[in-house]
Amino acid sequence: MTEIRHRKGQQIAERLSPGLRDALSDKYDRILPGMADSLIEWAYGHAYAREGLDLKTRQLCTVAALTALGGQTGPQLKVNIAHTLAAGATPREITEAIWQMAVYGGMPAAINGLNAAADVFAERGIGPGQG
Amino acid sequence: MTEIRHRKGQQIAERLSPGLRDALSDKYDRILPGMADSLIEWAYGHAYAREGLDLKTRQLCTVAALTALGGQTGPQLKVNIAHTLAAGATPREITEAIWQMAVYGGMPAAINGLNAAADVFAERGIGPGQG
Amino acid sequence: MTEIRHRKGQQIAERLSPGLRDALSDKYDRILPGMADSLIEWAYGHAYAREGLDLKTRQLCTVAALTALGGQTGPQLKVNIAHTLAAGATPREITEAIWQMAVYGGMPAAINGLNAAADVFAERGIGPGQG
Amino acid sequence: MTEIRHRKGQQIAERLSPGLRDALSDKYDRILPGMADSLIEWAYGHAYAREGLDLKTRQLCTVAALTALGGQTGPQLKVNIAHTLAAGATPREITEAIWQMAVYGGMPAAINGLNAAADVFAERGIGPGQG
Amino acid sequence: MTEIRHRKGQQIAERLSPGLRDALSDKYDRILPGMADSLIEWAYGHAYAREGLDLKTRQLCTVAALTALGGQTGPQLKVNIAHTLAAGATPREITEAIWQMAVYGGMPAAINGLNAAADVFAERGIGPGQG
Amino acid sequence: MTEIRHRKGQQIAERLSPGLRDALSDKYDRILPGMADSLIEWAYGHAYAREGLDLKTRQLCTVAALTALGGQTGPQLKVNIAHTLAAGATPREITEAIWQMAVYGGMPAAINGLNAAADVFAERGIGPGQG
Repeated sequence: MTEIRHRKGQQIAERLSPGLRDALSDKYDRILPGMADSLIEWAYGHAYAREGLDLKTRQLCTVAALTALGGQTGPQLKVNIAHTLAAGATPREITEAIWQMAVYGGMPAAINGLNAAADVFAERGIGPGQG
Repeated sequence: MTEIRHRKGQQIAERLSPGLRDALSDKYDRILPGMADSLIEWAYGHAYAREGLDLKTRQLCTVAALTALGGQTGPQLKVNIAHTLAAGATPREITEAIWQMAVYGGMPAAINGLNAAADVFAERGIGPGQG
Repeated sequence: MTEIRHRKGQQIAERLSPGLRDALSDKYDRILPGMADSLIEWAYGHAYAREGLDLKTRQLCTVAALTALGGQTGPQLKVNIAHTLAAGATPREITEAIWQMAVYGGMPAAINGLNAAADVFAERGIGPGQG
Repeated sequence: MTEIRHRKGQQIAERLSPGLRDALSDKYDRILPGMADSLIEWAYGHAYAREGLDLKTRQLCTVAALTALGGQTGPQLKVNIAHTLAAGATPREITEAIWQMAVYGGMPAAINGLNAAADVFAERGIGPGQG
Repeated sequence: MTEIRHRKGQQIAERLSPGLRDALSDKYDRILPGMADSLIEWAYGHAYAREGLDLKTRQLCTVAALTALGGQTGPQLKVNIAHTLAAGATPREITEAIWQMAVYGGMPAAINGLNAAADVFAERGIGPGQG
Repeated sequence: MTEIRHRKGQQIAERLSPGLRDALSDKYDRILPGMADSLIEWAYGHAYAREGLDLKTRQLCTVAALTALGGQTGPQLKVNIAHTLAAGATPREITEAIWQMAVYGGMPAAINGLNAAADVFAERGIGPGQG
């Protein structure tokens, strides 16, 4: 079963972020052998590649959670906002999921999340109203 | 605008959890005047009643975030799992959103989230495979 | 300087919660030698006994922070709500400080904080409107 | 009631940080319609504008909580240290509230809070001993 | 590689907590298919079964982190205190690792951690001084 | 006892990070009188200088916890990775303790921890494989 998980995980990761596995390997495997394969297998094979919930909703859930968790997940929030666009969500769906977190994680977390979204949208030339 | 927000907020709250406003008022307004109306207006009027993202996805995002935030939100997680069923999600969609949080909030958070879901499902007589 | 800190710390602790040091010693020193004195010296000697901010405001700050930090500090929140009453704050000042945290730590944290306050007030026979 | 909340919220926000509402609107309303009014109404109208606790103490509670919550609230901590000076607190009262959080949120949180305070004081030409 | 990881993970899990995989399967696989194997493979195969750090130190690191993370990890902290005894640590080494977390996660986290340790020691008949 | 704690704390601090006390005093004592002595006495005197757990394991526990706590402790994580090398741990032991936290604090926390370790290793000219 685990080999299937690994292959499925790599397929999803490649769809959301082409070249992710090799980028991770280049950056981390020297100081922690096997890190890239572990991450792909766990995060994508054991989570995103599962059945029972569509990929776009999975990604919106991740954006919401990373927003609520706050500062420690800033870089990963940006990465996942990009993945969520790649999974078919509109910019507006993303900012709505982020803003709703003001209720659960507090206003600072939501504002920082909106700042992250604004940065990702600007990098990709996505203007307001295009959502 | 704010009056509209309050009315819309109350409509959504009533749909997800009939009688919620009055229950909050009975429990909290004595020690904090106006708490029930503030909560309904903010959480439901300024968040769930907004356009741009459907209610079921909003609820799944909330379940994911409360799972990742962990212990401090245990009681609210159960309430929101019930709201998420009321918004049309299947039990399986809920447990998938919870489990995915093992990647972001850690395994203990995900396990505690699954325990909360199992409790809510059991209270409602929802068996495995019914999702 | 440290001996003064220890004495001052013990004076403050005794004012807020008579017998605290010995209760801590009975409970913890067997599994962690010196725990009670360390806690008194650090928390009360190096923090609450300092000049520059009055004790009542210090306690309200602590109640606010423990509310925002959420679940992990539940038992300590109740202890500090009692200490804050002992430092001269009214019940209403305490619930106001707790509720304000909905903005920063999210609604679940504030609701759990109000529940803690309601419990402490009930244990002490403090009714609504007495603040 | 909500219209009154909105007006009172805007009055408090304007006192603590002139022009805040319009700055928020310029920055966020394009990607999330209505964000500025929601924030003013919720954070200032439903929290700071309430009776039962004076504004200076409210702000010190916020500084304490944002310090304890740590990294995710760094930018907001600086904004609120400035607001707390505007509400009449001395620099020393602010650093005392921050330091006390070492007991509850840990030493790293307190050190990061002191760094934020030192930055805000330096930007405003507030020297040591002026508190 | 992943098959090896799964087998190694199961060996470590069995050493620390005999029957863990099947207990997880009985409890969770009905509401989330494959949960038990995923947990064993990830937590034990990709983490504890790795080379480069001995098992006892790994467990003490986990106890320290779960203490610092606080409330959301209470049940898992108890499980891991038991695993840490099984990996060869003394009760005193465990309480020392917990107490040190007062510096990083705050005093409430450390006190809650000591309470968890006291419970586990009591359940196993481990008295003070036996560390 | 407290004078002994202060002296022992200063000895440990000096071993891990020569000149730490005076650097803290220069930076913080102006805005918070006595901060440097308080930190040395509490963090090093009441924690690291205690018996019952060796210094290297204590430091690995700290690295694990700061990784799991995430963003708010970024600067302190780097400082403690350096202290952990000074206490005799290998780079590999450090990255193993960090990575294991992916299970408890989530993948983003572990990745940010590895980034911190890579930075500290690079500053010190420690290459891969030297652990």
